[in-house]
Amino acid sequence: MLESAEIEHSVSKAQYKRALPDLRDKLLNAQYDLFRSGRGPVIVLLSGVEGAGRSETANHLTEWMDPRHIRVVAFGEPTGDEASRPLAWRYWQAMPPKGRLGIFMNGWYTECLAVHQDSEIGDGALEGRLHAIRRYERMLMDEGAVLLKFWIHLSKAQQKQRLEELDSDPQKTWRVTKRDWKAYRIYNKAHAFWEHLLRETSAEAPWVVVPGADEQYRHLTVGRAVLAGLEAAAQASRARPKKALAARVTTSAAELPDRTKLIRDLDFRRRLSEAAYSEQLDLWQGRLAEHTHAKRFRRHSLVLVFEGVDAAGKGGAIRRVTGALDARQYVTVPVSAPTDEEKAHPYLWRFWRHVPPLGGIRIFDRSWYGRVLVERVEGFAAPADWMRAYSEINQFEDQLVQAGTVLVKFWLQVSKEEQLRRFKAREHTSFKRFKITPDDWRNRKKWDDYELAVCEMVERTSTEIASWTLVEADDKRYARIKVLQTIVERLDRALAR
Amino acid sequence: MLESAEIEHSVSKAQYKRALPDLRDKLLNAQYDLFRSGRGPVIVLLSGVEGAGRSETANHLTEWMDPRHIRVVAFGEPTGDEASRPLAWRYWQAMPPKGRLGIFMNGWYTECLAVHQDSEIGDGALEGRLHAIRRYERMLMDEGAVLLKFWIHLSKAQQKQRLEELDSDPQKTWRVTKRDWKAYRIYNKAHAFWEHLLRETSAEAPWVVVPGADEQYRHLTVGRAVLAGLEAAAQASRARPKKALAARVTTSAAELPDRTKLIRDLDFRRRLSEAAYSEQLDLWQGRLAEHTHAKRFRRHSLVLVFEGVDAAGKGGAIRRVTGALDARQYVTVPVSAPTDEEKAHPYLWRFWRHVPPLGGIRIFDRSWYGRVLVERVEGFAAPADWMRAYSEINQFEDQLVQAGTVLVKFWLQVSKEEQLRRFKAREHTSFKRFKITPDDWRNRKKWDDYELAVCEMVERTSTEIASWTLVEADDKRYARIKVLQTIVERLDRALAR
Repeated sequence: MLESAEIEHSVSKAQYKRALPDLRDKLLNAQYDLFRSGRGPVIVLLSGVEGAGRSETANHLTEWMDPRHIRVVAFGEPTGDEASRPLAWRYWQAMPPKGRLGIFMNGWYTECLAVHQDSEIGDGALEGRLHAIRRYERMLMDEGAVLLKFWIHLSKAQQKQRLEELDSDPQKTWRVTKRDWKAYRIYNKAHAFWEHLLRETSAEAPWVVVPGADEQYRHLTVGRAVLAGLEAAAQASRARPKKALAARVTTSAAELPDRTKLIRDLDFRRRLSEAAYSEQLDLWQGRLAEHTHAKRFRRHSLVLVFEGVDAAGKGGAIRRVTGALDARQYVTVPVSAPTDEEKAHPYLWRFWRHVPPLGGIRIFDRSWYGRVLVERVEGFAAPADWMRAYSEINQFEDQLVQAGTVLVKFWLQVSKEEQLRRFKAREHTSFKRFKITPDDWRNRKKWDDYELAVCEMVERTSTEIASWTLVEADDKRYARIKVLQTIVERLDRALAR
Repeated sequence: MLESAEIEHSVSKAQYKRALPDLRDKLLNAQYDLFRSGRGPVIVLLSGVEGAGRSETANHLTEWMDPRHIRVVAFGEPTGDEASRPLAWRYWQAMPPKGRLGIFMNGWYTECLAVHQDSEIGDGALEGRLHAIRRYERMLMDEGAVLLKFWIHLSKAQQKQRLEELDSDPQKTWRVTKRDWKAYRIYNKAHAFWEHLLRETSAEAPWVVVPGADEQYRHLTVGRAVLAGLEAAAQASRARPKKALAARVTTSAAELPDRTKLIRDLDFRRRLSEAAYSEQLDLWQGRLAEHTHAKRFRRHSLVLVFEGVDAAGKGGAIRRVTGALDARQYVTVPVSAPTDEEKAHPYLWRFWRHVPPLGGIRIFDRSWYGRVLVERVEGFAAPADWMRAYSEINQFEDQLVQAGTVLVKFWLQVSKEEQLRRFKAREHTSFKRFKITPDDWRNRKKWDDYELAVCEMVERTSTEIASWTLVEADDKRYARIKVLQTIVERLDRALAR
């Protein structure tokens, strides 16, 4: 992929001067169209050979357009808050909202490129990383982002010439660091790696290789490609059929029993006496407190997901968990309607915001599973969107677990009769009335659809590393103890390792 | 303040049971009224003697109300991202938006209480901290927050009894830590400190001392006070006269020359030749690069504020600064309309979000001074709000500088004639047309009002630690070099220390 970029490419000063006003004009207009359309975002990823002039090109782009709508970001050694969270966290944090342009220096290739340079990454780890990158880019594009990846290239001779030019100018020598010369010395070895990297990550979001030796050629080429990308983003149609298709994937009552066996087989008669409950509550709360205060816990974090049918007792279960925790360690994250900042980002962004650092605990009262539950059943998300959510969620949870998170997911289920009983009781207790809304009654009518969505969710996202625990919740005492015990047992295993 | 709380207070189980349904009912309604009103937020700060049952009370509050609109937060040892920023940063991050309820365990008193326990704080430092707390609470209240501060108290005998009870129950002994017993041992010494702390921070946001020995008494007392606070918050009127008063504070042309001498005395003829510019640009960029790469810089951070009249060349000056920086270190923060999350928080919240960690650089393209410039002149902020902004800003900047930030603030000024020339030039260059809007022409008509606002801003916020640099910007080359040189010289001084 790189040979042709090593041949001389150039644009004369006169050509450049002639071309520029028109290009700037169009870039600006396209940037405003993008902003007004609220589509995108457009991500310009600038990578390439050290000394090839990425920063200058980024500076030109911000000069040519309105810098107030551009976010330029680069990533160094992970800082404290970055290092104690999954690798991808900082890339999620830096993502610009829809309508904006992001210029990412190396972006999520930072680790691959840096680690390779220090020869510390094994082939297996590299392939795993490239695979994660492909899935991340796929997700971004599915969410409407336009990715423009540029590899600014120099041949070995060109790199040497460039570094020497800078180094010999006493006013500019500060631009050349030891790191640059080190990069030059391993050029040949790196070249094969770059070829591999570009090939392996070009299938869906292809790299554009830009010859970097001639400054004007480089600026114009990138500028024109960014223009094309901006125009494509602003014009892209995100309109997708919603309700119509959603209906098609709900199922007929006849095939339900088989596909919802998981829930129908639950034994709702399980019960715990008050005495047994009180004793076990103290027992499991004590062990939970021990675990979360243990020194070893600082190398982990704990993420609890609480989902369940209406009136299943999520709140009560959560309070029995937090009753055993140090308030300094945990945060409860109630998930309701997204804010406008959240709506302007890919779906999972609002959950990535709350990923805990090592030693931290986050309790999600409802979660990222909303997409394959309520959004699916109510038709708020297009089928294409909630269907791809399963694998995006699996990938998200995989990243959490790899970073040391103990992830425990609960589905609290009550029988249809018990739910009715609780709804009615809530209507009769004035201070519980807020817990029962017309929505609850509406959801109840869709009981079968929800049951199907839940079973499919559990099937598709109960992975080895992040299994679901189904909790029979007709008896609140039984349910609370099962929740506590499950968390403690998962911590037993994780901390023993 | 504490004696009366050490006397026996109690509520019988029967009384408690009778009172509860009504209280819960009212609490819920008040919570929803607050949510709908979009006022507040209401901050419940729970502090007090170790073992007095703060956590249980917090748990009850979340059980009695809708936990989805409550944020419970507690603060431990500062984590990596917290430790590398000003002390107050984490309290700003944790602030719930308007319409919500926050329960803060110890809140911004965490350091005072912890540090005192470890006897590491001097009297001077303590008084400084208490002063900062008073100003912070004043600001929160001015922004519409309702503060409810509870000191849950126990006498020494009560504390001992409570700890012993828990410790002797094999199932509950985990609730008692070494820290609790340590707190007990220094009770007498602490008692005097608590009295001082409560007295010194009660003038504007008074503490409510709650006897903690009887659980039911404690829950009911806090619950009722929270109810009163919620009701007060939802009903508070935030309506303030805006435009009318704003007009009163603009000034007559006659008194202008004197009050805007600062700007009128600037020498706009200062110029730099192209040759001198090119040489000095390399020089100062080189020194800036050196400074920001230096090891000593990691104990500092750099915050640059760029304000100026329209068309003064802020963008160009910023690009000459970023041209010398490593993209991994800096982030440019363009300040435009706030998002809805930002609008739901106190004014400075949106800037606290971007406070850099040690070693980081943030460049603000417009800033928190918007309140005393455009918001003042256009009447977007009530006079009471922009007038108090001066001291809030000074406090904010003081906190930055104390945490190691080098803060450099630029006001770029062009003469009225030069601005006109640039406006016209922009209208004739198609790709610069985005830089000139009807707003710019409107602002120009208010030239005198802005001049006055700028001079007052400089006077009131050019403090010893955070002085303004006025930049004569009729010649862009001169202005850019002055900006770079000023930054370098400020870093010279800071890093030499």
